[in-house]
Amino acid sequence: MPDYRFADRAEALRQSSRKAESGVIMVNKGKIFPPLLPDISEECQIASKLTAETMQTGPAMGLTELRDGIVVFVAADGVACTRDEVLVTNGAKQAIELACRVFLNPGDRVIVSAPTFATGLRIIRSHGAQFLVIPQDDDGMDVAFLEKELARLEATGEPLPKLLFEVVDLNNPTGSTMPAARRRRLVDLAKRYNFVILEDSAYRRMGFDEAPVKALKGYDDSGVVVMLGTFSKNLAPGMRLGWAVGAPDIVQRMAMLKADGGSSPFTQRVVIEMIRRGRMDEQISLVRSAMRDRCALATAAVRRELPDVEFQTPDGSFYLWIRLREGLSARDLTARAREEGVGVASGWDWFPNHESDSFLRFAYSGVSESDLEEGIRRLGAAYRSIAAAAPDLAS
Amino acid sequence: MPDYRFADRAEALRQSSRKAESGVIMVNKGKIFPPLLPDISEECQIASKLTAETMQTGPAMGLTELRDGIVVFVAADGVACTRDEVLVTNGAKQAIELACRVFLNPGDRVIVSAPTFATGLRIIRSHGAQFLVIPQDDDGMDVAFLEKELARLEATGEPLPKLLFEVVDLNNPTGSTMPAARRRRLVDLAKRYNFVILEDSAYRRMGFDEAPVKALKGYDDSGVVVMLGTFSKNLAPGMRLGWAVGAPDIVQRMAMLKADGGSSPFTQRVVIEMIRRGRMDEQISLVRSAMRDRCALATAAVRRELPDVEFQTPDGSFYLWIRLREGLSARDLTARAREEGVGVASGWDWFPNHESDSFLRFAYSGVSESDLEEGIRRLGAAYRSIAAAAPDLAS
Repeated sequence: MPDYRFADRAEALRQSSRKAESGVIMVNKGKIFPPLLPDISEECQIASKLTAETMQTGPAMGLTELRDGIVVFVAADGVACTRDEVLVTNGAKQAIELACRVFLNPGDRVIVSAPTFATGLRIIRSHGAQFLVIPQDDDGMDVAFLEKELARLEATGEPLPKLLFEVVDLNNPTGSTMPAARRRRLVDLAKRYNFVILEDSAYRRMGFDEAPVKALKGYDDSGVVVMLGTFSKNLAPGMRLGWAVGAPDIVQRMAMLKADGGSSPFTQRVVIEMIRRGRMDEQISLVRSAMRDRCALATAAVRRELPDVEFQTPDGSFYLWIRLREGLSARDLTARAREEGVGVASGWDWFPNHESDSFLRFAYSGVSESDLEEGIRRLGAAYRSIAAAAPDLAS
Repeated sequence: MPDYRFADRAEALRQSSRKAESGVIMVNKGKIFPPLLPDISEECQIASKLTAETMQTGPAMGLTELRDGIVVFVAADGVACTRDEVLVTNGAKQAIELACRVFLNPGDRVIVSAPTFATGLRIIRSHGAQFLVIPQDDDGMDVAFLEKELARLEATGEPLPKLLFEVVDLNNPTGSTMPAARRRRLVDLAKRYNFVILEDSAYRRMGFDEAPVKALKGYDDSGVVVMLGTFSKNLAPGMRLGWAVGAPDIVQRMAMLKADGGSSPFTQRVVIEMIRRGRMDEQISLVRSAMRDRCALATAAVRRELPDVEFQTPDGSFYLWIRLREGLSARDLTARAREEGVGVASGWDWFPNHESDSFLRFAYSGVSESDLEEGIRRLGAAYRSIAAAAPDLAS
């Protein structure tokens, strides 16, 4: 075996989540319970007949009709844009990757909050970026804190950040949503300090009530926000399609760095036909309603089985963000839980510098209601087991 | 509009090929003539019913059955591998990108031949690599030259290259195929000087006669070759699926840097079903046979319409690589040809440092036979026009 000379980013990699094993209930990922996933056979029949479009390489920016569909979709978020501002990607994750490719040289600074989307952090980290970590409260990123930090960097002549990454609607993992006033202030800071905001809107339509606030991109009058979205939650993760909405200068560069020969025109045509037939709206309603029920079930079960943990009841999305009793390690708990037959994610990877080992991210989205109940029972058993072994700091 | 602070790689970008316009015959890309593309409606019916697999996020390495299918496919190339060595990608292009992400820090050296696959060059360049350019002869990369160059670098203490990129079968653009002895010597050099070879095998099954030589990966007994392949030519470009076959240490890192949530399990399932029903072999035969006819047609038409150009009659693949009469500029010709109503690629972008402006890359793969004839007539008119304006160096 040769002594491979990997790039720095590849040397630093470590395998993340463990694989599913038979009998283990997996509540570690934002999957969708399979019976809720759509049957796309009719749309496939249409797409199959359009071989000249769907079996050929497509345009790097995406199929025109899909880009137009995204223009209409984000209009409901208060975002006015044209087709030229829309790039089709392989899920929102690829959009994060491409934005990093467009903006980041190694060593550049990126603003993130703690905690935030683990995969977003992993992608940004793989570009050799330095995190500028900003705390959060119940309204999301603490923008007043950010403002002071930017002023301090400017005063001391330190390099200013180039990008900010944030999930402003139903934050993954915390579930918080940023209020309008804070959104305005954040966009103002981006203009003043010349950084670009990557707004990950993956869960925006997954609120249990209608979203009352415009998307962050809706407050952007000067091209400082790139809004990232996905059909993974709104239609099906298996489509592997998402988008970026931003200034043509940015999204065209993202397209030129899209080293995959363009997204599949076949799956793009399927999504176009689903939108045309109103199936995306149906699917969003179906999933949102199912998630409301599962959230209620999970919330009650966690209160019963893990009585001394803390969490906010979510307003939407797929997750509970659970703080353990002081003195307990979430990574110890997830290891023990695995032995009990439930796979759950510790919050460790959602912290940019692994600042805390006190949280679990529990996904109620992907398993049956009975597995959800049983999974939480097993988690409760694991919790009691590690709690019994730990000193009770509260007493 | 903000003054965007792009990364170095994004500043350097320029838009490449021009868009198709109505009435212009496009022979600039390796597309497949649409009537030759497959109807996948039956496979879609199967895939649509497997929602739990096809509409969900799949494994980062790809679906097990597809990886097993690739193991069998490359066995016919003389490559013995197991599933653990196979990564599913979004076309061979994404495999090039991921290999660059795994190996290259900015400034690292990559061995390429001149000319070579333009998109490969663009991807490698976007990683800040330095090219070590090696000449070619009718047998592909001049490996004896490479050997001397490596010895020289070692003697002078200069940094040795980390990667080599080459299309050893039916080279894009030249059509050359590297003989067995040279393949062995190239693998030996990779072992001796500790670099990894990216073998782009996109056109390997597109030879008009059966490929007599093992793939380069077939000569690799120590994990120095990563073989990249694609279903784009063998099934349909619209699938956007390909693969990398290499040491688990490498392909697992590529998977971890695959920031797209994994390739679409839906299109993967469609390909699995096509392979299972023998449709890939059928499709390869169909396309290869059609390309043999079109090649004969294009060859005769170019000899008639552009009598003083030079080219090798290809043994397969989709392209003619045409050298213009001395003193003529291929970029001038492509601009003039566009005015005549035919879109053809100059060879400029196939040279790592744009060393030559004397070649055209003509794709006979994507248009009808009548458009092929008419396109070459238009190209001939453009050629006569620029030749008339140029000094005749031969006289």
